Amino acid sequence: MAFELVPGAMIGILGGGQLGRMLALAAAKLGLKTHVYAADPESPAFDVASARTIAPYEDELTLVEFAGTVELITYEFENIPTHTAAILADSCVVRPGPEALAVCQDRLAEKEFLTAAGVKAAPYMRVDDAGALARAIAQIGRPSILKTRRFGYDGKGQVLVREGADLAVTFRTLGGAPAILEAVIPFSKEISVVAARGPSGEFAAYDVCENIHENHVLKSTHVPARLPPGIADEATRLTRVIADALVYCGVITVEMFVTGGQGGDDGPLELLVNEIAPRVHNSGHWTLDGAATSQFEQHIRAIAGWPLGAASRHGAEAGGHVEMDNLIGGDVLAWAKILGEPGASLHLYGKADARPGRKMGHVTRIVPGSDH
Amino acid sequence: MAFELVPGAMIGILGGGQLGRMLALAAAKLGLKTHVYAADPESPAFDVASARTIAPYEDELTLVEFAGTVELITYEFENIPTHTAAILADSCVVRPGPEALAVCQDRLAEKEFLTAAGVKAAPYMRVDDAGALARAIAQIGRPSILKTRRFGYDGKGQVLVREGADLAVTFRTLGGAPAILEAVIPFSKEISVVAARGPSGEFAAYDVCENIHENHVLKSTHVPARLPPGIADEATRLTRVIADALVYCGVITVEMFVTGGQGGDDGPLELLVNEIAPRVHNSGHWTLDGAATSQFEQHIRAIAGWPLGAASRHGAEAGGHVEMDNLIGGDVLAWAKILGEPGASLHLYGKADARPGRKMGHVTRIVPGSDH
Repeated sequence: MAFELVPGAMIGILGGGQLGRMLALAAAKLGLKTHVYAADPESPAFDVASARTIAPYEDELTLVEFAGTVELITYEFENIPTHTAAILADSCVVRPGPEALAVCQDRLAEKEFLTAAGVKAAPYMRVDDAGALARAIAQIGRPSILKTRRFGYDGKGQVLVREGADLAVTFRTLGGAPAILEAVIPFSKEISVVAARGPSGEFAAYDVCENIHENHVLKSTHVPARLPPGIADEATRLTRVIADALVYCGVITVEMFVTGGQGGDDGPLELLVNEIAPRVHNSGHWTLDGAATSQFEQHIRAIAGWPLGAASRHGAEAGGHVEMDNLIGGDVLAWAKILGEPGASLHLYGKADARPGRKMGHVTRIVPGSDH
Repeated sequence: MAFELVPGAMIGILGGGQLGRMLALAAAKLGLKTHVYAADPESPAFDVASARTIAPYEDELTLVEFAGTVELITYEFENIPTHTAAILADSCVVRPGPEALAVCQDRLAEKEFLTAAGVKAAPYMRVDDAGALARAIAQIGRPSILKTRRFGYDGKGQVLVREGADLAVTFRTLGGAPAILEAVIPFSKEISVVAARGPSGEFAAYDVCENIHENHVLKSTHVPARLPPGIADEATRLTRVIADALVYCGVITVEMFVTGGQGGDDGPLELLVNEIAPRVHNSGHWTLDGAATSQFEQHIRAIAGWPLGAASRHGAEAGGHVEMDNLIGGDVLAWAKILGEPGASLHLYGKADARPGRKMGHVTRIVPGSDH
């Protein structure tokens, strides 16, 4: 029988950062309670949760206790130890399921999954030692990127392999962890599709996001992405292919590169999948202000076994667009100025310490159509 | 010097119902923490607050302790004992200020304030005993309504005085409490204006709300109110007159009757103020989904000493409107059906027990313009 929550139920959230916080806020809107499990006592999500557990993700006894207090478990990040997910799935419904997690937290498994699903990605090779790196370079060329298979995010766990670089040194840079080598793709745009899939295959995607990164961290998102006709639909179609193949439940985000199509020997315009995030995503934060249903509510609806909400964008029919800018580190000092800007919606994550590179908040602007 | 919060500050909220809950959620969006003080251990706002105090509103020691943990205090309802407000104001900034509270929690003070501000309301007389009731009836006539001066809401603390009713019995119905007698006003519509005033007089009003009551409880709100041109502006103007005269800080709601204008000896169309609520209001719940800034965020901005947000309505430029329906008692059983309705936004308050008459949640629908 299909699993379905009722209002008043307690959802467990692994991870207490801003994503967990915004998931907890969305659950509250729908009359659900949340129990947040995180290692850091200063986790921002604790401020808006009904219950809190402070413990490491490897603490088996506490994990089992936690699972006993909730009716469903979800997570805000894919780097949960496999063993942790397995322990939780033993005693509780975990959504998205541990299988999707296993694919998304290992870059090699992810590439192999994409290949099997018939979805294009950058050429890659498995690299388990310095010798394998040399063989991969021979195949893929330089510049290319060596990435650890696990626990990478925001540019961490990866290194560019330039002409002349010492391969043994390069391999040691990443601590000798199992890795893959990926071709560097010359792309004209980075985009992402944030979508949700319900337990019975229901699917809803937001308008495609166009993303700008700075120092490997998302800086801003522009929606809808400025793409030739048909390409946005193709990006959404690929996302559905991926979600279906994973038998996915919840919000999923697929990051893609737009390559080719610039003329010369550049080749035709095409989409290459860069990464699958099995969760709500920074590039979907605009949906809090700019869509009928936020990505956080959408995730809660999907994992609860409830109907998905409308993913329509505010102002779309009038030709407008939405801009989301991350407030990273000291950017957050502009909070007072942003509050005074008509129509800007400020979100702060309740983090005390504005360290460089830390995501402190974001701001969304709904820009009316130019003919309005 | 002007008092102003910084992100990370803790706001105290008196009252733990759905209004306190939605205020806490709005504070979290802005990176503020909340400490909710309420008497009922099952208070829905506790689920989303950083800190909770369970104690009666008359517990002086606990009130002083509470005030010591927060940088600012606000409240979700006007029926706070005067002494409680005074104790808190002694050691902390309280917004809206105790003066506005004093006016709004006493129907006689409210009427006298409106008269002094030059704002029309229904004819009234002070009634302190059965003899005064007889004199008031002689002046105002029947049917009329006897209302306790304090602690009335949702039709509680009032009784209709019909032809032939025994006045001594009627007066005892309300427990002999100090009261006022009010004329019954034949009205064509009930409307409300939800607006915010900042500490330096900045003012922002939402589109006027048209309200339908059932058994003295708000059933639904339609925005914008269907009013002849000029009347909506006049309602907003009166609200600003009231907010300015109260030197108000925060969100204020003014309920009004639209009377006359139907022809015959009905008199010209005019607005009579029914009640001032010194707080966020049920008729403003649509702003969570239908406005650029919700009434809850607007209240937090105002009391924090921050700039007010845009009060513009989504879809207004395309001729659409917004509908908000309360889910009262068993209405909430329709939650699954509402979740499946495209474009409907469901809000549940996390209350376990759907008692008759209890506000369990609400649903907002943004209806596009008919020519779209």
